[in-house]
Amino acid sequence: MNVEQVFPMMGGDGENSYAKNSRVPEKAVIMTKPLMEEAVREICKSLPEKLVAADLGCSSGPNTLLVLSQITNAVDEHCCSLSQQKPEIQFFLNDLPSNDFNNMFQLSVQHQKKIREEKGDAYVPFYVVGSPGSFYGRLFPSKSIHLFHSSYSLMWLSQVPRGLKEEGSDLLNRPDIYIDKNSSIVYHLYLKQFKTDFLDFLKSRSKELIYGGSMILSILGRRDCQASGELLHLWGLLAEALNTMVSEGLVEEDKLKDFNLPFYAPLMEEVRSIINMEGSFDLTQVQTFESNWDPFDESNENFVEDKKSSGRNVANYIRAVVGPLVTSYFGTDILEDLFSRYANNVSRHMHDPKPKYTVLILVLKLKGGEHAICGCK
Amino acid sequence: MNVEQVFPMMGGDGENSYAKNSRVPEKAVIMTKPLMEEAVREICKSLPEKLVAADLGCSSGPNTLLVLSQITNAVDEHCCSLSQQKPEIQFFLNDLPSNDFNNMFQLSVQHQKKIREEKGDAYVPFYVVGSPGSFYGRLFPSKSIHLFHSSYSLMWLSQVPRGLKEEGSDLLNRPDIYIDKNSSIVYHLYLKQFKTDFLDFLKSRSKELIYGGSMILSILGRRDCQASGELLHLWGLLAEALNTMVSEGLVEEDKLKDFNLPFYAPLMEEVRSIINMEGSFDLTQVQTFESNWDPFDESNENFVEDKKSSGRNVANYIRAVVGPLVTSYFGTDILEDLFSRYANNVSRHMHDPKPKYTVLILVLKLKGGEHAICGCK
Repeated sequence: MNVEQVFPMMGGDGENSYAKNSRVPEKAVIMTKPLMEEAVREICKSLPEKLVAADLGCSSGPNTLLVLSQITNAVDEHCCSLSQQKPEIQFFLNDLPSNDFNNMFQLSVQHQKKIREEKGDAYVPFYVVGSPGSFYGRLFPSKSIHLFHSSYSLMWLSQVPRGLKEEGSDLLNRPDIYIDKNSSIVYHLYLKQFKTDFLDFLKSRSKELIYGGSMILSILGRRDCQASGELLHLWGLLAEALNTMVSEGLVEEDKLKDFNLPFYAPLMEEVRSIINMEGSFDLTQVQTFESNWDPFDESNENFVEDKKSSGRNVANYIRAVVGPLVTSYFGTDILEDLFSRYANNVSRHMHDPKPKYTVLILVLKLKGGEHAICGCK
Repeated sequence: MNVEQVFPMMGGDGENSYAKNSRVPEKAVIMTKPLMEEAVREICKSLPEKLVAADLGCSSGPNTLLVLSQITNAVDEHCCSLSQQKPEIQFFLNDLPSNDFNNMFQLSVQHQKKIREEKGDAYVPFYVVGSPGSFYGRLFPSKSIHLFHSSYSLMWLSQVPRGLKEEGSDLLNRPDIYIDKNSSIVYHLYLKQFKTDFLDFLKSRSKELIYGGSMILSILGRRDCQASGELLHLWGLLAEALNTMVSEGLVEEDKLKDFNLPFYAPLMEEVRSIINMEGSFDLTQVQTFESNWDPFDESNENFVEDKKSSGRNVANYIRAVVGPLVTSYFGTDILEDLFSRYANNVSRHMHDPKPKYTVLILVLKLKGGEHAICGCK
């Protein structure tokens, strides 16, 4: 199964829609705001006539436009403060061809209209376009992008790790859907696939980025190998719900054995090592932050007030993200039951210390681009 | 009603789908092939590292990809024949945000896969992107496009001509849905709207086109003011079907009175005069050709073999194009009946001489761009 098949159309409506529940990335987008502003100031120093930015793996939710707003605002404010001519901005929204671009374009038109009404004609001109394709391959002409952004996307692999489904292998019979805490073989297969994919990603972007430009990535990751309460656990609770449904005869055992998430949450050291191995980029800044599992819980307290509601929020979010994938394996019939069980499993684990996952933030620049003038190619 | 509201989502499936029936433009795309090739050779002379092209009003049918193929083939062959480094091609597919971009992106992914299999890695690299928006406004950053193409789109106005619905005006009571042969007021209102729109179009493109680049347009037009058998007639037969349905109580009279097509088929002199008025472009080549009403009839004979089948083909084509507009005024219930009556009306008129419409083809270049080197900005 390759990346084109991994994600059937994201979307849906109502309580479980992707748009309604894809709220988590907002935090990452807010966390990366100062980095984005710095990158924009850097690019604007060379007085480009146009500034081209791309959001990779943008999905079709409203948070996509947050990134756009941050960039246009940063350019507008920077140029106003220096009385500098404003560049025109071209903003590429990228995701797999199965993404709901129609919905995204409708949102972007509403956004453009709103901005025009609120800010008037003096605001920096911007043009939104859609770029369908996998970011593990080439998407843009060489040296054509000043600023890449990608939020909560790069932990999705291009395919389920090779070797997980080898004939006669013991791995075929495991009850897990992600990495198995007790199996270093599975861990290494996942890491190997992440390495292959991330190398392909870096290689493609190194051709497309303009010297002097920046790439700002936020990726769900891990603090350390043994860290509990993290994504291993989050997926473990989904596997638990699926296994219970197998034992009750509601899900076929063979189907579950065949189901593996194309997902890997890397360590910062792993990411850094792959960047060094590829060799085109300097990792100029790194940050990590912890985010509560519940996308609606923004408190720093270490207890969960309403475990049931928090469990439901997490289940809705995870359903919005992996629902289409689950459906393509198990059909739509099990969705309600599965995610209701999952919500209960998650609620049960909403104890002290409150479960969190780790987000890695990286800023990369092309090597040797420090003194380059953006957009000169 | 403005352009955003004029065209609800194009698409549908089966016998009446837009994709299946949007076959007419193929002829125009084939007619413009030599002009496209000439424009490509011209652009390639300056050895650009990338060549950026845009198809304006691309719709979501398979013919969209014909234009893409023509451009990539022309670049590939030209560069091979001169052993010249191939530029990367970025191809923007533009249409209103209500267009079915999802379908178009799926088609473009299949196309890219097929090309890669057939032509291998040595073929010119190309990237397909979508640009949602009205071409009567700005769509791209300044000086960013080498080659504009637009086929069968510019006769669609941004809105129903102002003044057609003025309170107390006699024009409110006319039974026609397009220009009235006997009313020069209506004709002038339509021409005025076309002038406004085409001026906006030219003004926007003049900012976006790179010096030395080309714009190739094909527009449904008219040979002369009195020409019969043309689009006045084609829409007249649709108005006839609607009026019959009013007389039978199947369509509300008031709704029909309110229905006017946002369409104008210009004379070549009118187009030329607006281009001169705007002042940025030289009209370097003009051509006209006649096309049979029936998109499946490619014969040059002057008789129709199967009038019934030809009537149905025309009705299916027109339904694919204006179906969503008709639906937004009259609801979906009347569609089957209306286009079945329309097919009969058209069949009745498939007599000698066979009805044809006129297509205007124009090649425009920015004034003063003869000696410019493309892509140097």
